[in-house]
Amino acid sequence: MELSRYHPNNLKRISEGMINIHPIQRGGILTEEAKKILLSWADGYSVCDVCLEGRVDLIKNPPINQLKQDVAEFLGMDTARFTAGARHAKFVIMSAFKGGTLVLDSLAHYTSYIAAELNDMKIYEVPNSGYPDFRINPEGYAQTFERVKEETGRYPDIALLTHVDYRYGNLADAEKVGRICEEYEIPLVLNTAYTSGLMEINGKKLKASFIVGSGHKSWAATAPIGILATNYELADRAFQTSKVRGEWSGRAFTKKELSMFGCSPVYGLPVITLMASFPKVVERVKHWDEEVEKARWFVREMEKIEGLQLIGERPKNHTLMHFESPAFHSIAKSHKKKGYFLYHELKKRGVFGVQAGMTKNFKVNTYGLSWEELEKVANAFKDIAEKYGVEVED
Amino acid sequence: MELSRYHPNNLKRISEGMINIHPIQRGGILTEEAKKILLSWADGYSVCDVCLEGRVDLIKNPPINQLKQDVAEFLGMDTARFTAGARHAKFVIMSAFKGGTLVLDSLAHYTSYIAAELNDMKIYEVPNSGYPDFRINPEGYAQTFERVKEETGRYPDIALLTHVDYRYGNLADAEKVGRICEEYEIPLVLNTAYTSGLMEINGKKLKASFIVGSGHKSWAATAPIGILATNYELADRAFQTSKVRGEWSGRAFTKKELSMFGCSPVYGLPVITLMASFPKVVERVKHWDEEVEKARWFVREMEKIEGLQLIGERPKNHTLMHFESPAFHSIAKSHKKKGYFLYHELKKRGVFGVQAGMTKNFKVNTYGLSWEELEKVANAFKDIAEKYGVEVED
Repeated sequence: MELSRYHPNNLKRISEGMINIHPIQRGGILTEEAKKILLSWADGYSVCDVCLEGRVDLIKNPPINQLKQDVAEFLGMDTARFTAGARHAKFVIMSAFKGGTLVLDSLAHYTSYIAAELNDMKIYEVPNSGYPDFRINPEGYAQTFERVKEETGRYPDIALLTHVDYRYGNLADAEKVGRICEEYEIPLVLNTAYTSGLMEINGKKLKASFIVGSGHKSWAATAPIGILATNYELADRAFQTSKVRGEWSGRAFTKKELSMFGCSPVYGLPVITLMASFPKVVERVKHWDEEVEKARWFVREMEKIEGLQLIGERPKNHTLMHFESPAFHSIAKSHKKKGYFLYHELKKRGVFGVQAGMTKNFKVNTYGLSWEELEKVANAFKDIAEKYGVEVED
Repeated sequence: MELSRYHPNNLKRISEGMINIHPIQRGGILTEEAKKILLSWADGYSVCDVCLEGRVDLIKNPPINQLKQDVAEFLGMDTARFTAGARHAKFVIMSAFKGGTLVLDSLAHYTSYIAAELNDMKIYEVPNSGYPDFRINPEGYAQTFERVKEETGRYPDIALLTHVDYRYGNLADAEKVGRICEEYEIPLVLNTAYTSGLMEINGKKLKASFIVGSGHKSWAATAPIGILATNYELADRAFQTSKVRGEWSGRAFTKKELSMFGCSPVYGLPVITLMASFPKVVERVKHWDEEVEKARWFVREMEKIEGLQLIGERPKNHTLMHFESPAFHSIAKSHKKKGYFLYHELKKRGVFGVQAGMTKNFKVNTYGLSWEELEKVANAFKDIAEKYGVEVED
């Protein structure tokens, strides 16, 4: 084993010192408050110094039990848990509907499908409108519910809507989908991995039965941490406790929540960084409009590059965006670095996060960039275009 | 919401500045190397800046893919994955034996039972010898396998042994259990949550089919991170890939590993701190003998307190220990702080980690304490005993 490769001097983060516009990185950047407490809480199980009830969500010092309630309130729900990522939160929900039928939007993150697959569920998809806007029509939920009824004789057990999808950054009409689900009495899971923690979410108003969030994606927390909020009616079903009994010893673990693996494994920095960032997160969601304004400005600037075009809904309602760029793609064909040229040219200009090798299509996220940084990023793309003879509007 | 409670100034760790002998905290204390890289990698998904294959275990920069192989080699196994804690690793294994029968030791951690419960498995326990040593007799595995055969008509599908249990810190005879499992051709899961990362483990030598480890418990890493190592024969079964297909979109995720939630959620500090600590961990396991020597010395010192007695095997083979202390228990009865007096008296002496409220029985872990610190801890207990008129041998 060549252990020297793991020496701290060899573990420099590649994006360090650059503006990182990687689609999954913007909302997880720690607040100054979270950075301050890192060192004190970095050891293993740090938050479990005083655990009296054997569950991390019940710990009072640090105030995790209180945070759980505050997070639920912040999302307009009754109660919440912290999970090993949004994927684990979805697994927890689907465990409560094992073997049932799920309807989800066809833009859902793959972990939504996998949470259902792990629980032997049948999956039906709500179509999207396809190229170039890829919208989910809320009425598609009613139609798919009816289709499920026709094919299986029963309405589905649960529905899932991806609030903002990871491919186009489209903002779905959660309120309309929520109303449809309410009419059909089908519990709605709203996956807010790209929204809660960035924009205001009120689960009650949106008629969601479950809100799934991602701490490392959108709540300025260290990975992994997911949020699972629900209402009192469904909490017992989602957070079923263990019923197993040791056949020789008689041991039982009746306080442990089964799909949470007994006690959620977020017992260190993930939960404490989420906690330290929480006051800033509560504040920042109020300024979402400015983020959308900046995103729209950025799209306008980017589309000044010949042939470059936003894919997904217009106007943008989110900071995650997907571009099609035939011009960069043709440069790549004859460039000695092939598709990697764009990645390298951006790096030279202090911009990181467009996936290496991508030119025909690429995604970026502008969340939290200052106007100055945003301009720097737009100029980097324009500058590269011009360098290779692609026309850029003034 | 009273958000001021989450202000960094209000998030001081209660054990800070004290010697922390909490049973689960010693092996997870970060190395200096891991502390050095904290700030660079603390943001959300940090290690995913350059993810080309959609799985954290395949990332080349930082060298996670290499680390995975080095960890497997270190454990004497063929391949490995990082999971959301040892509990998640056990869930992954049990998913591959869904609906089957598991035999485990009756000292197993509750998460071993829960991993099986989540996968609808039938559980049989290998008895322990009961008070005061609570030993697991390796022959108990053969007997239990036969009992399963009698009752169900088939031998069990899988067996699990807890290498060192969390209640008494007994070191099980893994080699003997491994040999029995090999004879019966029943795959053995060795749960090394309290051993790998602290002492040398060679899965091949121990005939283990799966090694489960805990990064935050014993590999000087930030929570949550588990290790799941296996051999080539069983890897495909354990790391089954997704087979789901979107019925409208045709989407499929065939590279994603199902029970890992597609891609394990350890994509930030957990995996990078484990990486930065790894060279020191590889080194420290060679000095396990000294840790055992210190633990035995500590037991001798503690037992100088009247009536205080080690529970579990003798001599100690591990640094996690369980004491019975009738004298402290009788003090508690008349003390105005009741059972909390011991916790407070220790804190006053700079020692933290005996569970608040416990006096009749309590657990501590001496791993990694210097001789000086160890002496300070022993003296604190003796000093408290003397203060309340309990006899202490010279």
